[in-house]
Amino acid sequence: MSNTFGKRLCMTTFGESHGRAVGCVLDGVPAGLAIDEAAIQAELDRRRPGRNLYATARKEPDRVEILSGVFEGRSTGTPIAMVIFNTNQKSKDYGNIKDLFRPGHADFTYWEKYGIRDYRGGGRSSARETAARVAAGAVAKLMLREIGVKVESGIFKIGEAEAERFDFAHARKSEIFALDPAVEEAQKDAVIRAKEAHDSIGGAALVRATGVPVGLGEPIYYKLDAVLAEAMMGINAVKGVEIGEGVHSAELLGSENNDEMTKRGFASHHAGGTLGGISSGDTLDIKVYFKPTPSIFKPLRTLDIHGNEVVCELKGRHDPCVAIRGSVVAEAMAALVLADMALLNMGRKIEDVRRYYAR
Amino acid sequence: MSNTFGKRLCMTTFGESHGRAVGCVLDGVPAGLAIDEAAIQAELDRRRPGRNLYATARKEPDRVEILSGVFEGRSTGTPIAMVIFNTNQKSKDYGNIKDLFRPGHADFTYWEKYGIRDYRGGGRSSARETAARVAAGAVAKLMLREIGVKVESGIFKIGEAEAERFDFAHARKSEIFALDPAVEEAQKDAVIRAKEAHDSIGGAALVRATGVPVGLGEPIYYKLDAVLAEAMMGINAVKGVEIGEGVHSAELLGSENNDEMTKRGFASHHAGGTLGGISSGDTLDIKVYFKPTPSIFKPLRTLDIHGNEVVCELKGRHDPCVAIRGSVVAEAMAALVLADMALLNMGRKIEDVRRYYAR
Amino acid sequence: MSNTFGKRLCMTTFGESHGRAVGCVLDGVPAGLAIDEAAIQAELDRRRPGRNLYATARKEPDRVEILSGVFEGRSTGTPIAMVIFNTNQKSKDYGNIKDLFRPGHADFTYWEKYGIRDYRGGGRSSARETAARVAAGAVAKLMLREIGVKVESGIFKIGEAEAERFDFAHARKSEIFALDPAVEEAQKDAVIRAKEAHDSIGGAALVRATGVPVGLGEPIYYKLDAVLAEAMMGINAVKGVEIGEGVHSAELLGSENNDEMTKRGFASHHAGGTLGGISSGDTLDIKVYFKPTPSIFKPLRTLDIHGNEVVCELKGRHDPCVAIRGSVVAEAMAALVLADMALLNMGRKIEDVRRYYAR
Amino acid sequence: MSNTFGKRLCMTTFGESHGRAVGCVLDGVPAGLAIDEAAIQAELDRRRPGRNLYATARKEPDRVEILSGVFEGRSTGTPIAMVIFNTNQKSKDYGNIKDLFRPGHADFTYWEKYGIRDYRGGGRSSARETAARVAAGAVAKLMLREIGVKVESGIFKIGEAEAERFDFAHARKSEIFALDPAVEEAQKDAVIRAKEAHDSIGGAALVRATGVPVGLGEPIYYKLDAVLAEAMMGINAVKGVEIGEGVHSAELLGSENNDEMTKRGFASHHAGGTLGGISSGDTLDIKVYFKPTPSIFKPLRTLDIHGNEVVCELKGRHDPCVAIRGSVVAEAMAALVLADMALLNMGRKIEDVRRYYAR
Repeated sequence: MSNTFGKRLCMTTFGESHGRAVGCVLDGVPAGLAIDEAAIQAELDRRRPGRNLYATARKEPDRVEILSGVFEGRSTGTPIAMVIFNTNQKSKDYGNIKDLFRPGHADFTYWEKYGIRDYRGGGRSSARETAARVAAGAVAKLMLREIGVKVESGIFKIGEAEAERFDFAHARKSEIFALDPAVEEAQKDAVIRAKEAHDSIGGAALVRATGVPVGLGEPIYYKLDAVLAEAMMGINAVKGVEIGEGVHSAELLGSENNDEMTKRGFASHHAGGTLGGISSGDTLDIKVYFKPTPSIFKPLRTLDIHGNEVVCELKGRHDPCVAIRGSVVAEAMAALVLADMALLNMGRKIEDVRRYYAR
Repeated sequence: MSNTFGKRLCMTTFGESHGRAVGCVLDGVPAGLAIDEAAIQAELDRRRPGRNLYATARKEPDRVEILSGVFEGRSTGTPIAMVIFNTNQKSKDYGNIKDLFRPGHADFTYWEKYGIRDYRGGGRSSARETAARVAAGAVAKLMLREIGVKVESGIFKIGEAEAERFDFAHARKSEIFALDPAVEEAQKDAVIRAKEAHDSIGGAALVRATGVPVGLGEPIYYKLDAVLAEAMMGINAVKGVEIGEGVHSAELLGSENNDEMTKRGFASHHAGGTLGGISSGDTLDIKVYFKPTPSIFKPLRTLDIHGNEVVCELKGRHDPCVAIRGSVVAEAMAALVLADMALLNMGRKIEDVRRYYAR
Repeated sequence: MSNTFGKRLCMTTFGESHGRAVGCVLDGVPAGLAIDEAAIQAELDRRRPGRNLYATARKEPDRVEILSGVFEGRSTGTPIAMVIFNTNQKSKDYGNIKDLFRPGHADFTYWEKYGIRDYRGGGRSSARETAARVAAGAVAKLMLREIGVKVESGIFKIGEAEAERFDFAHARKSEIFALDPAVEEAQKDAVIRAKEAHDSIGGAALVRATGVPVGLGEPIYYKLDAVLAEAMMGINAVKGVEIGEGVHSAELLGSENNDEMTKRGFASHHAGGTLGGISSGDTLDIKVYFKPTPSIFKPLRTLDIHGNEVVCELKGRHDPCVAIRGSVVAEAMAALVLADMALLNMGRKIEDVRRYYAR
Repeated sequence: MSNTFGKRLCMTTFGESHGRAVGCVLDGVPAGLAIDEAAIQAELDRRRPGRNLYATARKEPDRVEILSGVFEGRSTGTPIAMVIFNTNQKSKDYGNIKDLFRPGHADFTYWEKYGIRDYRGGGRSSARETAARVAAGAVAKLMLREIGVKVESGIFKIGEAEAERFDFAHARKSEIFALDPAVEEAQKDAVIRAKEAHDSIGGAALVRATGVPVGLGEPIYYKLDAVLAEAMMGINAVKGVEIGEGVHSAELLGSENNDEMTKRGFASHHAGGTLGGISSGDTLDIKVYFKPTPSIFKPLRTLDIHGNEVVCELKGRHDPCVAIRGSVVAEAMAALVLADMALLNMGRKIEDVRRYYAR
């Protein structure tokens, strides 16, 4: 089940960047949930390419169609299949790279693993697949809203320009989803500079969930933080994941890092919302670090499928900073994890089971 | 299956720190593997507490017993159950914390989730559970050895003392598993200083795998790097995980971060051994960041199970730097992931399937 | 993952009888397999309604479209999504049963479980969903062909008319997939008599696999026979499953039932192809018993969703004997199980793993 | 995960008949359940060999020990590990069959699959492994009792002696778990006759569950009846499974087989408690058919591991009718399935999810 994610709320995705469609089957959505198609489309629109200077110029409408699982506007408890037909595939852009391995891409490893690959735009390994995740994540967010959980995201870092405060309302409106208006221009500049140099640049997103009930996460091997880490590291180009204090916690003393508890809640927030892999009720903070887009317009040494050393010179249209649109994907994945965990958590106490069936 | 890890090679663990035993059932080990009990015990001995100044003074022999799955020294293809009976439980140490939530521990979340908890030493959430992982990981390493994969680990950072070079042979002999002899003393000092101040300190481990065949990892939702991230973040006290360039990649340009390919291999090593979630054949580098042990001997404000604000004052014996022994656990988890992926990978090409059944 | 079947070769299906489409995502197909679309369509055509007197008059072209996972005629190792758009939905046929529970159908249980249901033609519980299984099973058969495994099926019983010999070549041509030409007419008569009486009739299929390698099946909880039983009992209207001697084995003595072994193979065939849940290399025989179609054109007492006793009078078009088309589904499910087991079996010996990675 | 059963309540078993122990890890038991060890032991005692003339003379105390997951008499939500140490292994009984394949046993298939086998008493394929299932099933029954579900079993058929009525209270006291006192003697006679002839005999059990809430079962691929079929067919020696009318339904007309609904419940009971794979609230009836024990004391032709034709002459102690003790295993497996389904079912409606988290 290598293309399925989740245990109780399960997303299976399919599709290649230059095939007929990408899509997903979302299984386990509780019945009776109002499925707001406009809300799903709105999430896809956030991830959609071609919207401004800071993303690839490729224009794809990314129109989602629901094929099943919804009846008279509500989920029925059966799988919700959603499909996004591909409309703007310029396969010819890829003719010159058909037989070579683009550095930093999955071309080499897919070829070695499978002995065949759809070379057009990365095929299955293309970030285009993440559109399906965003559609599924949008449904997860509809479900989470019913229990008061809100998931948000934004960019806190591009290159060395790093946010000092996190304004998610601002991020939602920003062309680069910048969390901090004070550094937004510096971040935009960094993107434009990279783009103009035919280069790309790395970046990082913060995903925050509020209203998370205490108790989500299944120890020992389906912990909330562990599954979030899997979800994030599995996003194209992600190389680092932190929960709460993250990497920095390795430099701290216990007396600095422990969050004392008071009647008004935790006195500090180093843990980032989990204790022992279970949500603590505190704000959940996940930081996700994206490498620079490997597709750049500078010549790079590489190999072709015959083992010859060749030069890779890319054409086409690419995101100069994959973190920007990636933040929307990270938010969607976090929503899927939380919704899955919320469902798995039901029945953890025998008194809950008794009450459920006593009605 | 929240206590089972892996898809094809599956480890299920059980046990509490102060119950009768901790243990695991390892399912999916190929038949015919020579099971070297001494090698398994040797791994447990590396993780074992009470060996020197830098770990808890608690002495536990951690003697592993194999209950099943091995016949005449070889695996039979049936589940290998291993158990480590607890022998040095001082439950009375925990009398004074029976009703309160130790800051930074899972006490609060377990209580909220389950409404009951084994308060003795953390119960299931204790790092003692990781002994079972190390036993299972040792078997995974026996299997990996058969295909030329080697997994090693060591400490590269404690507090601000950070390794500049990685000497795994040295780490294996070092009392603190230090990778860099040049900073080992500084790292030891940091631990002792924290200990003497009744405090604790964070640290970080590097896990490295060499000889990994190209092609391990199942895209899109069982990618090698994603599952490694899950495995690492799921270890007690881990707050950050990096693959290759990690967090730093967010600051780089594509032209700096891309690894060009040549006939002699990758020209640089930013990726850390995976491309598109699949092993590239290059050295696999995972960095794992541990928070400082939450158990410190300074009074901390907290709540009890009745909601009262109380002061937590710990007794007992604790690791001043959980990263040290944690590095052995991280190595074991990485071995389990790689062995699982190696088995899952078989049959990815129809020609392999055909050849397998043609014999 | 209640809509996913299989562990290594995983089929996820979606869709309702009167929604936009039914379909499946087949994950885990080895890369490089020639995907013969005509062969897939041919299997769907066998299951397709409206072909003759013995099936529902409902005409549906059941045209399969492949959305992903195939490139230049070969599988790429990525998920193969297949969709069959619904074209002949007469939802108005169902207006009069909108609020009542058809006896013998899943109407009542879906309503109670989910509190909402797509009442048009049974929605998700419709046998129409099985078209997706047949499409996936067709791909499984393409894979099995590569390793010399053949899966066939036919009807051996309708009402009391029971086959005495099994001619699968005949079954393939027969309008009712009859295995025994000698009883075919009696079986057809039984169907027509039931149909003319506005009634329906039960029946039973035999699924046979030949060329199955020894060793398929994962003891103890993914045994070949157990998973086949799950696969069969999960088909709409199935109420009984037998492997080999089946129900009759309860009447036998050990000396009658044991299959002795000789150099030329098993001396008898009571076991039906499995021993200890693992394929023995002998012909695999599965018998599948279908209840009569619950949709009949006689008034039946039932309840409506408000709890009132009402009379159910069906209109529309229904199969008089669901076993007939059901046999094609049973064959597809058996193929999926065998293909899954063949992939799972790879790596069961360490010497196999060693050889695989030594290349 | 071939040695794990269940999705939300997961049983992993381990152990061989002549190894150190058999046991299980039961994961997913809701916290706070009173764990009555005597009740668990009582279930094991029902399955225990050596109790009377109708079972093997082998005496094993089958004393269960709980290693984890229970604190102060209650489940904690963590895995419950249970172990039964082997005490009466007479490995020497097996010396003469070390190199040959007992007909009707898994010796051949294990050897072919794994290339190694623990030949002592069947090793992992021994019915001894089912002790672990009975222990886990006993815990499932404790959980089911909390929601008013009762699972019972008994023998309805041995050879041709078949029960006409089902008295589960009688079965519980009967030495052969006979459901019908009127045929009990005939059934006992059949067993003794087979035993005295150095032969064995088949039999069949009925498992019945009452109080099952409407709505258990996860369509389409984790249906209640399908998973029950898997659970039953996976028990050693089972060759046929029926739900409700079972095999006989193939001979019926729709008008005979449909269960009409009234305000007082279903007017008849052909379905056997499921509709569309979901529990209907009606009594759940599962029939399980066991082949005769393959171990008989008559010479049988077979092969040895070198491919030579040899004669198999068994010594040792064996059940003359494996169905008898098998019925206890079937009951345990049914309880596990129902408990798993009860937990999975929670959260099937968004209003349930909302209510759960609104507290």
